[in-house]
Amino acid sequence: MVLEKDKLYFAPLSEIHRVRKNSCLAADTLAQILRINILYMIKRAGSGHIGTSFSAVDIMLWLWLYEMKKPNTGAPDSDVFFSSKGHDVPALYAVLTALEKLPFDSIHQLRQLGGLPGHPDIHTPYIAANTGSLGMGISKAKGMAIANRLNNDMGRIFVLTGDGELQEGQFWESLQGAASQKLGNIIVIVDHNKIQSDTWVEKTSSLGNIAKKIETFGWSVLEIDGHNFFTIAEALGTCLVDKDKPKMIIANTIKGKGVSFMEEVAKDGLYKFHSGAPSDDDYYCALEELTQKTNILLEMVGMKPLELESVDKPAPKTSSPHRAENLIKAYGNELARIGGQREDVVVLDADLVKDCGLLEFKKEFPNRFVECGIAEQDMVSIAGGLALRGKLPIVNSFGCFLSTRPNEQIYNNASEKTKIIYAGHLAGLLPASPGHSHQSVRDISALGSIPGLTMIQPCDEIETRLALNWAIYENPKSTYIRLVTIPVELNFTLPVGYTLTKGQGVKVQGNAKDKKSVAIVAYGPVMLREAVKAAQDVQADVFNFPWLNRINPRWIREILGQYDLVVVIDDHYKLLGLGNIIATVFGIGPVSYNNSSPKMLLLGLEEIPACGQNDEVLKYHKLDAESITTKIREVQGS
Amino acid sequence: MVLEKDKLYFAPLSEIHRVRKNSCLAADTLAQILRINILYMIKRAGSGHIGTSFSAVDIMLWLWLYEMKKPNTGAPDSDVFFSSKGHDVPALYAVLTALEKLPFDSIHQLRQLGGLPGHPDIHTPYIAANTGSLGMGISKAKGMAIANRLNNDMGRIFVLTGDGELQEGQFWESLQGAASQKLGNIIVIVDHNKIQSDTWVEKTSSLGNIAKKIETFGWSVLEIDGHNFFTIAEALGTCLVDKDKPKMIIANTIKGKGVSFMEEVAKDGLYKFHSGAPSDDDYYCALEELTQKTNILLEMVGMKPLELESVDKPAPKTSSPHRAENLIKAYGNELARIGGQREDVVVLDADLVKDCGLLEFKKEFPNRFVECGIAEQDMVSIAGGLALRGKLPIVNSFGCFLSTRPNEQIYNNASEKTKIIYAGHLAGLLPASPGHSHQSVRDISALGSIPGLTMIQPCDEIETRLALNWAIYENPKSTYIRLVTIPVELNFTLPVGYTLTKGQGVKVQGNAKDKKSVAIVAYGPVMLREAVKAAQDVQADVFNFPWLNRINPRWIREILGQYDLVVVIDDHYKLLGLGNIIATVFGIGPVSYNNSSPKMLLLGLEEIPACGQNDEVLKYHKLDAESITTKIREVQGS
Repeated sequence: MVLEKDKLYFAPLSEIHRVRKNSCLAADTLAQILRINILYMIKRAGSGHIGTSFSAVDIMLWLWLYEMKKPNTGAPDSDVFFSSKGHDVPALYAVLTALEKLPFDSIHQLRQLGGLPGHPDIHTPYIAANTGSLGMGISKAKGMAIANRLNNDMGRIFVLTGDGELQEGQFWESLQGAASQKLGNIIVIVDHNKIQSDTWVEKTSSLGNIAKKIETFGWSVLEIDGHNFFTIAEALGTCLVDKDKPKMIIANTIKGKGVSFMEEVAKDGLYKFHSGAPSDDDYYCALEELTQKTNILLEMVGMKPLELESVDKPAPKTSSPHRAENLIKAYGNELARIGGQREDVVVLDADLVKDCGLLEFKKEFPNRFVECGIAEQDMVSIAGGLALRGKLPIVNSFGCFLSTRPNEQIYNNASEKTKIIYAGHLAGLLPASPGHSHQSVRDISALGSIPGLTMIQPCDEIETRLALNWAIYENPKSTYIRLVTIPVELNFTLPVGYTLTKGQGVKVQGNAKDKKSVAIVAYGPVMLREAVKAAQDVQADVFNFPWLNRINPRWIREILGQYDLVVVIDDHYKLLGLGNIIATVFGIGPVSYNNSSPKMLLLGLEEIPACGQNDEVLKYHKLDAESITTKIREVQGS
Repeated sequence: MVLEKDKLYFAPLSEIHRVRKNSCLAADTLAQILRINILYMIKRAGSGHIGTSFSAVDIMLWLWLYEMKKPNTGAPDSDVFFSSKGHDVPALYAVLTALEKLPFDSIHQLRQLGGLPGHPDIHTPYIAANTGSLGMGISKAKGMAIANRLNNDMGRIFVLTGDGELQEGQFWESLQGAASQKLGNIIVIVDHNKIQSDTWVEKTSSLGNIAKKIETFGWSVLEIDGHNFFTIAEALGTCLVDKDKPKMIIANTIKGKGVSFMEEVAKDGLYKFHSGAPSDDDYYCALEELTQKTNILLEMVGMKPLELESVDKPAPKTSSPHRAENLIKAYGNELARIGGQREDVVVLDADLVKDCGLLEFKKEFPNRFVECGIAEQDMVSIAGGLALRGKLPIVNSFGCFLSTRPNEQIYNNASEKTKIIYAGHLAGLLPASPGHSHQSVRDISALGSIPGLTMIQPCDEIETRLALNWAIYENPKSTYIRLVTIPVELNFTLPVGYTLTKGQGVKVQGNAKDKKSVAIVAYGPVMLREAVKAAQDVQADVFNFPWLNRINPRWIREILGQYDLVVVIDDHYKLLGLGNIIATVFGIGPVSYNNSSPKMLLLGLEEIPACGQNDEVLKYHKLDAESITTKIREVQGS
């Protein structure tokens, strides 16, 4: 079959049926076909986790095809399966669509609004738990097992975990209680593919002898080849012997299994296929290999080759990446530059060295780069210890994790009044395709009230550099820098010579007529871009306000107080975001301040954010320019 | 020596000097004397952790007396000591005052404003880290060890941990990295007294074979008798052999060691001397035993008996406890009552069964009571799993921990849109004596923006019952109930027949004259009591507003909008508390709403709260009635 380079290919349901009918080859062949569909879904979606989906799909297929009773139906005595790591969900979707538990056509809708979310969500049929925030799986399974015991329900709970995930404290926290409470209906399978987000688990934060460790927590442990259906079946059989002990099967797997070049860590030590869509070349090359492997298996039993169906390849996104602002790159460059000036700077990472732009610093100052693994609590308290001994720690992770998992640890550090810089990457509503576990839209609220912690969010590369320099050189206390990760093509520029002034905004667009009617206040590249677009329609002035929890009330009153209407757009929940803080000023006037406050319109998220493509999700939450315009007109017209 | 029952006794510095001069008996005898001073400090302060101070004091004494070089001076190559559990700090203060590192007179000022904080704080001399939030110690030590390595500093870091503390995930999260980064200068000593807050560790959440576990994480492990100075000395010597491996010494100790009746778990299975001051009887009885033991040791070397000094016993607090409202008791009773009606209710606890008022429910419904140990993340995700299987979990811990340690887990549960009730006990500024690790003044901010999670705080026993019933029977979504733990004598009552109406307050005191001048809005018993006191001076009306993150804007406008001045008192940080949410309403009027908003005055905490006695801390933060009056007059007069 000749692959056309303007098409994407998937194995249709009819082909899956054909293979399933021949029981001799069902699992082995089906597993290859599912990989073709996983590859398709992720390539089409533009992002997703291939490596882990390929390492986990054999185990998932076996569980759903042969092992589980009434899987995930919620019926009495039904077995439950979920993946604690969650980013392998394309593999689960491939299984569920192949078994027609999900409509087959949903494979065309991965990471689209109303389609299949980027991480598991229980509002999709047959998904048993929301995951994607690592380390929670066994605890959730314990809750299910306790509920089953109370209900005299014999259902078992199968939990798939990653191995990098074992670096999370909650994993270990959850073990002992399962054993002492004799929750023997829990069967955990570790997808031990030995590579985490960036590189080898061993190099990131070695796990030592996992089996030996887990046994000391009172679990029954087995180690198997996770790509061999015979050993998978045998292990699941063996598992049932000891009714009282929770079980853990350590499945040795290969990340990227099935496509030779996806099974390797690159020469630079980084693994390239953890997340993100493969390039066109990689896609067709992988597809060819998988098709070939399938066809060999089919040929062995005298069946004709696989017939794939195709769809047109989606048009590439319109924005020109070379003109887009890349804040993470600017942050990483500046960090490395400052690293040369400041010997006290120590950079900490939790297995996101690439995503947080830390490669340059790590290369230049390896001694001052601390890789903590997926262990955010540990990382933040390590930073606390470093600061107590005179270092300036710069702590990195995705904002969704950094602001929440080590929330108490950040507060504890703040109580010591040392200086620490936290960088929360992947901030805000976009990208919307990974889903709510990764959309950091709660960090102002989660951390904003901590005394001595100033939160700041830059809107472009220049302001990113300014923010980092301000945090390092000017702010005597701690700073949380909130960084949007997606490159954004901007429709505004900061004034020449712009510098940061704490608690004050800066006008980036002036459209207001003589009578100053509307001011739109926003922060970060995404919402400012939308604000500027909207402002042209409603003759508004637009202010960039990078201070998320610090305002200068005088500036607010004097500058924003002049407008009839002040609109604040939060790239965050509306409740307890910047809007609440700014709006408060107009309720708190000194006597000298006359009371003719502007009307205010606060915009922001009001529900758990949707998963989907960026444009459609912005629109869904009414935070795109058009919706903003409409809202402003409503308020003006009312 | 005859003990007078209106005096409290301590061993003065002169006696400590006398004993230290005789090197034959220094450590053994000194340890008894330190226990006398620990007992004194805690009895005088009215609260503190005796059991753990007695189990840890021998180890601390040895380290500070003989083992550490330049201890906690911060000088090059100085050794560092801190306790990760932190509540054993009276023992450390006893050591530091005896060694004159701290002014001896500070033993009279435990848990007083400007005195010695209830948990360690680095702003006290020779305190190396802020602790009291469990499980962070090894991570902090890692940061210090990495800093030392970067500085070519040979200083060692000694960390004391509890054993109950080993239930925290962060403890395990921190282990592996220490081993793989070869942080051999870290020496952890586990105060393995086998009793945690409520009862035996084994019964709460068994730790299994700790030594074996820790070894699998690549640490060097030793097990010793933690009350035998020879084995302590020997272990510390042995420790130095392997330079690359972090070390853990599991010190078998006895909680309450030194006073026979404090060394036992009571017949009801609960340990009585974890926290809180001993009764008068217990105090004098313990003092007698300790003095006797000391005198026997002194006599053995021909020295005269110990001469204690005394101070007058502080007068008992004026408030009559029988008239005080006890919200925790009301909550516990109501929970047990509802437990009989609702079979789906499952109560979860993290080793605070007494403090959270759960004994009654546990006794009545043992199958539906899940003791999770000190493992808040695990507990919250277990609740998530229970809810997914149709149960109604009610999750309990102190608010300071519950709102922060499992912050991401609570959000993850919210994303599943299941119904869960969280009860955050020990909420608010008071009690102020345990210090900032335990003062929960950040929970509105930390959790308030989560969609589907309504936060409510009752002000008396009646409203506590109403709140629990509302959460269980009326609210279809999740609720966080914020509960003040200290009994408070109230100066107001709720109207007869009062019921909760979401987003609305209720007037509890009407002082305003014809012209409605001032409204004070507060929640919870402590701040409402202060508000009512203040209101009498400034002719204000007082509203109880139990909804912490849900307001009915119409009610706010119609009722509060009538006043010239609206004062909101947050038992929380001012930033991102209820004040911000209410004040926002006056900035956001629909067109029909006329713009003559009231002036607003927001009161609340603006810095990390101080440690001290309740009255002095309220005053320090200007949240006592007098300060509130003054502020209101300032705003009115200005």
